[in-house]
Amino acid sequence: MYYIGVDLGGTHMAVGVVDAGGTIIAKAETPTLPQRPYQELVADMVKCMYTAMEKANVKEDEIASVGIGIPGVADRNGVVVFCTNLGWHDIPLREEIQKHINKPVFIDNDANVAGWAEYAAGVSRNTDTSVFLTLGTGVGAGIIINGKLWAGRHNVAAEYGHIIINADNGEKCTCGKTGCTERYCSATAIIRMGREACEKNPDCLLMQRCGGDVNKLNAKHVIDAAKEGDAIATGVFNRYAEYLTIAVNNVISFLDPDMIVLGGGVSHAGEFLLNAVRERLPKYHMFKTLPYAELRQAKLGNDAGFIGAALLGINQ
Amino acid sequence: MYYIGVDLGGTHMAVGVVDAGGTIIAKAETPTLPQRPYQELVADMVKCMYTAMEKANVKEDEIASVGIGIPGVADRNGVVVFCTNLGWHDIPLREEIQKHINKPVFIDNDANVAGWAEYAAGVSRNTDTSVFLTLGTGVGAGIIINGKLWAGRHNVAAEYGHIIINADNGEKCTCGKTGCTERYCSATAIIRMGREACEKNPDCLLMQRCGGDVNKLNAKHVIDAAKEGDAIATGVFNRYAEYLTIAVNNVISFLDPDMIVLGGGVSHAGEFLLNAVRERLPKYHMFKTLPYAELRQAKLGNDAGFIGAALLGINQ
Repeated sequence: MYYIGVDLGGTHMAVGVVDAGGTIIAKAETPTLPQRPYQELVADMVKCMYTAMEKANVKEDEIASVGIGIPGVADRNGVVVFCTNLGWHDIPLREEIQKHINKPVFIDNDANVAGWAEYAAGVSRNTDTSVFLTLGTGVGAGIIINGKLWAGRHNVAAEYGHIIINADNGEKCTCGKTGCTERYCSATAIIRMGREACEKNPDCLLMQRCGGDVNKLNAKHVIDAAKEGDAIATGVFNRYAEYLTIAVNNVISFLDPDMIVLGGGVSHAGEFLLNAVRERLPKYHMFKTLPYAELRQAKLGNDAGFIGAALLGINQ
Repeated sequence: MYYIGVDLGGTHMAVGVVDAGGTIIAKAETPTLPQRPYQELVADMVKCMYTAMEKANVKEDEIASVGIGIPGVADRNGVVVFCTNLGWHDIPLREEIQKHINKPVFIDNDANVAGWAEYAAGVSRNTDTSVFLTLGTGVGAGIIINGKLWAGRHNVAAEYGHIIINADNGEKCTCGKTGCTERYCSATAIIRMGREACEKNPDCLLMQRCGGDVNKLNAKHVIDAAKEGDAIATGVFNRYAEYLTIAVNNVISFLDPDMIVLGGGVSHAGEFLLNAVRERLPKYHMFKTLPYAELRQAKLGNDAGFIGAALLGINQ
């Protein structure tokens, strides 16, 4: 049997047909155009499913289930409760899809399914319990406990970006709280810290890299300049690495998993970033002689979204 | 069958014989006198076990297992790796006990076993997943996931007191880190905040309650004065309640359990404290229309230690 997965993003949707091991057989994609009625988005989604099945030379009766990763929260009835950047509230997504294709439909948060993909077919494949952190515009997470994706009792678990790590005088978060982890550990946080450094040091290398316009500074500018040894970029990078280490240590102190996986844009910094965190972790670890979770980079990249969504069919 | 539980504290050890439902049949206790060689502590522990069995009129062959809650960390071989206030490092506790009584011996952290007791025989009995927070000198936790006590992969999970909630300019913690949850949510934290208030307001009610000596101020002074409506004590209490709400919200954002249980000395403030947190939680909750964990007071009190230790025998 095969599985269909959909990664429903704010700008485009990617659809894949994968086998039970997570190997991609074929994929298709199309712009999301989220301003449209949801029925039109679903129609395009289904069109992509059939395109991908055709490319894969897989018949509809060979498909076990359909999974969808959404940048939001769904309930157990397949209703999307919130999906902010699509402007969705209480959208009956499962029901709408089943009007077109008569398969079991599983819906989960995009970070959850990316974490599930890394467990089912990626870097955390041989672990029992892992926490995947995606470091992008925000910070998301996917928690796998004893080989099962952990959604929580009310489907609101793994909102790791909104664990508060600065209760006093924290940065204001888009969620309305202050001091959330994602204000310190996202790509957005690196950019903020980089801009602050540029304002203090208008002649610095970072300022050159963004062509003198701090609004064009991105996380890669900072990481690349730090890799090259630039002192100011290194200062920014080290500050970011310290916060990220605190976030990783908080996961260890809470759940003590086998492995913590870093994904998302910032994780492309690779071993340079992983080693910066690994070096700092012993200082935060409570029990100096006891081992703790291995820290690894995600390996499925952008495809993790639809692979994990597809493989929701094997999490049941 | 019956189960023996030991709550090994720094000042005294309490031993109980309980049935599979956690009902106490008999108990015994003796001072710990932790300066002695561990073999002598174990000999006293075993003496208490036989005293409790005799009181309970339970024979040794009716005992299924022995469980011990320690203020520290044990490994899977029953070796106590750390137990700071007993001065223990790498003590083969299971082996030493089995020299005296030939039963399976389970050892776990005292907060873990208290959480387990509340799940197995207390307030969280009918839940699947719960997090117990003990608010005492420090802050400990016990996590139950799908009806099993969660020790983590390396036995270092549930160190909730050392989740960092103030990465920048946090209070120095006894563990060496700064900004740990227990610096803001323990009885010690209430006392610190109460003392700060007394220093600013030397004529306040709190100052009267501690007889003019801030070194004698305790958490109960603050909570009682707040219950009476004293403005300064209320200010301290509200500040504490805000931090505790952040800690509770962090548990929800991470694990989203069925129930969060508050135990330990501060929890004796009862509904006054619980309601202060319940009122504040909606402000921190990410998904305004979705429900989240119920917040409840622990109900087994000090006996939770040996009840939970005893019932480690049914967690296997």
